[in-house]
Amino acid sequence: MIRRKEEMKTYDRPQMKGGTGKAVLTDLLDASEMFGKGRLFSTITLQPGDSIGGHTHEKEAEIFYILEGEALAVDNGQEAKLKPGDVLYTGDGDSHSIANCGQQTLRFVALILYV
Amino acid sequence: MIRRKEEMKTYDRPQMKGGTGKAVLTDLLDASEMFGKGRLFSTITLQPGDSIGGHTHEKEAEIFYILEGEALAVDNGQEAKLKPGDVLYTGDGDSHSIANCGQQTLRFVALILYV
Repeated sequence: MIRRKEEMKTYDRPQMKGGTGKAVLTDLLDASEMFGKGRLFSTITLQPGDSIGGHTHEKEAEIFYILEGEALAVDNGQEAKLKPGDVLYTGDGDSHSIANCGQQTLRFVALILYV
Repeated sequence: MIRRKEEMKTYDRPQMKGGTGKAVLTDLLDASEMFGKGRLFSTITLQPGDSIGGHTHEKEAEIFYILEGEALAVDNGQEAKLKPGDVLYTGDGDSHSIANCGQQTLRFVALILYV
């Protein structure tokens, strides 16, 4: 089955997890298409200055894969810059936040799997 | 945990599934990091003219998310061109193949989840 970019569900999450501005999500899969193995497989876009606030994942892991732009992440309390091709892996009980710290659009793939 | 692009495992799969040339895979996660929920979360790169041959997925589903380039896919026997942002969803018992039919590098994310 082919799902065209134009057909995908895209939606805003203002101040996501207490962040600034808004995150724009495009679902590559619906949670119901993940066979109970996870709940998110999406791209997330943040404009410069926008962020997703810090939060902890319980009984699940989230992977961010950076596609474009520059991110400032906090990974269990430690700051790190991320560039295209880098992965941020947030395991069960771990916390993260992510902000667009560059001048261009930040876009990444997000995958949440249950542990 | 941060995994830099340069640290990821990249490897060739010549004539993958009976295809032409080679597929170059970069693992974003190792299968052991997927909690038994799947077995692949990687990027796959095909140069012009290269392909992954037709094959069927059993007891699993594979999702291709096109990042760059132009693909000719066969989805359960039906040909379709794919462009960046499109998804090819191959469910349990379904078959697919994919070829780089363009003049530029074709790159996509591949995710395999168990059904």
